[in-house]
Amino acid sequence: MNKEQLVNIIKYKKSFLCIGLDADINKIPKHLLDNEDPVFEFNRQIIDATNDLCISYKPNIAFYESRGSKGWLSLEKTIKYIKQNHKNIFLIADAKRGDIGNTSKLYAKTFFDDETTGFSFDAVTVAPYMGFDSVSPFLEFKNKWVVLLILTSNEGAQDFQLLQTENKKMLFEEVLTKSKEWGDENNLMYVVGATKAEMLSRIRKFAPDNFLLVPGIGAQGGSLSEVAKYGINKECGLIVNSSRDIIYAGKGMDFAGKARTQAQSLQKIMEAILSEYEII
Amino acid sequence: MNKEQLVNIIKYKKSFLCIGLDADINKIPKHLLDNEDPVFEFNRQIIDATNDLCISYKPNIAFYESRGSKGWLSLEKTIKYIKQNHKNIFLIADAKRGDIGNTSKLYAKTFFDDETTGFSFDAVTVAPYMGFDSVSPFLEFKNKWVVLLILTSNEGAQDFQLLQTENKKMLFEEVLTKSKEWGDENNLMYVVGATKAEMLSRIRKFAPDNFLLVPGIGAQGGSLSEVAKYGINKECGLIVNSSRDIIYAGKGMDFAGKARTQAQSLQKIMEAILSEYEII
Repeated sequence: MNKEQLVNIIKYKKSFLCIGLDADINKIPKHLLDNEDPVFEFNRQIIDATNDLCISYKPNIAFYESRGSKGWLSLEKTIKYIKQNHKNIFLIADAKRGDIGNTSKLYAKTFFDDETTGFSFDAVTVAPYMGFDSVSPFLEFKNKWVVLLILTSNEGAQDFQLLQTENKKMLFEEVLTKSKEWGDENNLMYVVGATKAEMLSRIRKFAPDNFLLVPGIGAQGGSLSEVAKYGINKECGLIVNSSRDIIYAGKGMDFAGKARTQAQSLQKIMEAILSEYEII
Repeated sequence: MNKEQLVNIIKYKKSFLCIGLDADINKIPKHLLDNEDPVFEFNRQIIDATNDLCISYKPNIAFYESRGSKGWLSLEKTIKYIKQNHKNIFLIADAKRGDIGNTSKLYAKTFFDDETTGFSFDAVTVAPYMGFDSVSPFLEFKNKWVVLLILTSNEGAQDFQLLQTENKKMLFEEVLTKSKEWGDENNLMYVVGATKAEMLSRIRKFAPDNFLLVPGIGAQGGSLSEVAKYGINKECGLIVNSSRDIIYAGKGMDFAGKARTQAQSLQKIMEAILSEYEII
């Protein structure tokens, strides 16, 4: 998917919501456990109930990988199901991969090349520590995206990402600056945690036109207006993720309906924001 | 496996060789492709031919993951095979994972908890960019190890790892210093590329007692003496990896024998080094 298509989906759906498909077999409703593949069935119902309200799904790969080959099968089925049944979805593999060149090429193939793995993600999250040649193999795929970790939402983000360097920048700004030599707003997005909303304006100085993937928003939408205030650009430029607050909104037979209600309340706020900033 | 056991294996086998099980379906000998699981069969023969010469195997997960659930099955079979047939092997998952706390916990479970995935690795490589809470879940498993990326062997290592910080340290030294608050020489190792042998002495100042995992050594053993010169400590403290030069030493029916010959030439050099430094 290219940038124009993504922006069109945002305008069409009046939403910039990404739903994190972090399906944990220990947390999904108990009645699903009788299914042949409970995780897939959980995802399928969540997807059917929410796909008109969100522009993106983002499975975090750890949730699947931690169940071994069985988990990978659930993920393969989920991705195929989305591709076959729901258009207008930007698919993000939250994998946080990154390795030496030849190996990163294999990771890129894993998530982008559906002939071998059955996957056909639009984007992969990538960790920057190993530098240029660990990221560039992902950028070589046409109409695919790298979502580079810049400023994450966890506490440990302070350990290194906020270190001052000799260039009077913080490390995350070094990563941002350097990465602009590798790709541009048509194949490179950045992860910026919502817990650092005021940092978004700092990031916008370096990356005015790139999309930012913002995790860490609660269903209450508390900081959504903050994120928009500091981070929105003329094409929206934001993909805001919510995971647990949506997918575990209900525990019973009506869990998918409850998820829809949560997603809808976020979508409504987003619609108002898009309208306020004259994007729709 | 604890540190004492690892050191004992090094002394017993007179080796500190790790073999990278980076089995690429496009590179393994053609005659294996008739097997039900060619990658497992390749690994099995390599393992049977080399397990007395090395102390460790290190599959890079990308090679398996890039074949989807099929690849994960090959990896599961390989790990089970090693555990059942060959003792005295330190098993490293070269996964370069790292995510927010709860998610890193799932990755740790993936590689350390064999009840769910069939894996029972002794160690996992972890990327440090996300800081403390992305690494610590791996450190909570008893007798398991984090191998933290410090100074990698690829060109892109220069982009961020060598940046000077406000503390007059390079970023890799910041990571090293900080990580000592998280673990110690009994659960924390570091990745240091062999292409930077002289850097090893700088790293030894910060981490005199930790094991270092050193990739990037060729079968010719050219820089092995350099690595030892700058990096060895009283318990050896080195695990040196070689992948392609060993596992692809031969292309024909005798590929495993050829791999053994290559591994043996490295082991002989290592034996001489261990003897020179009075470790054996």
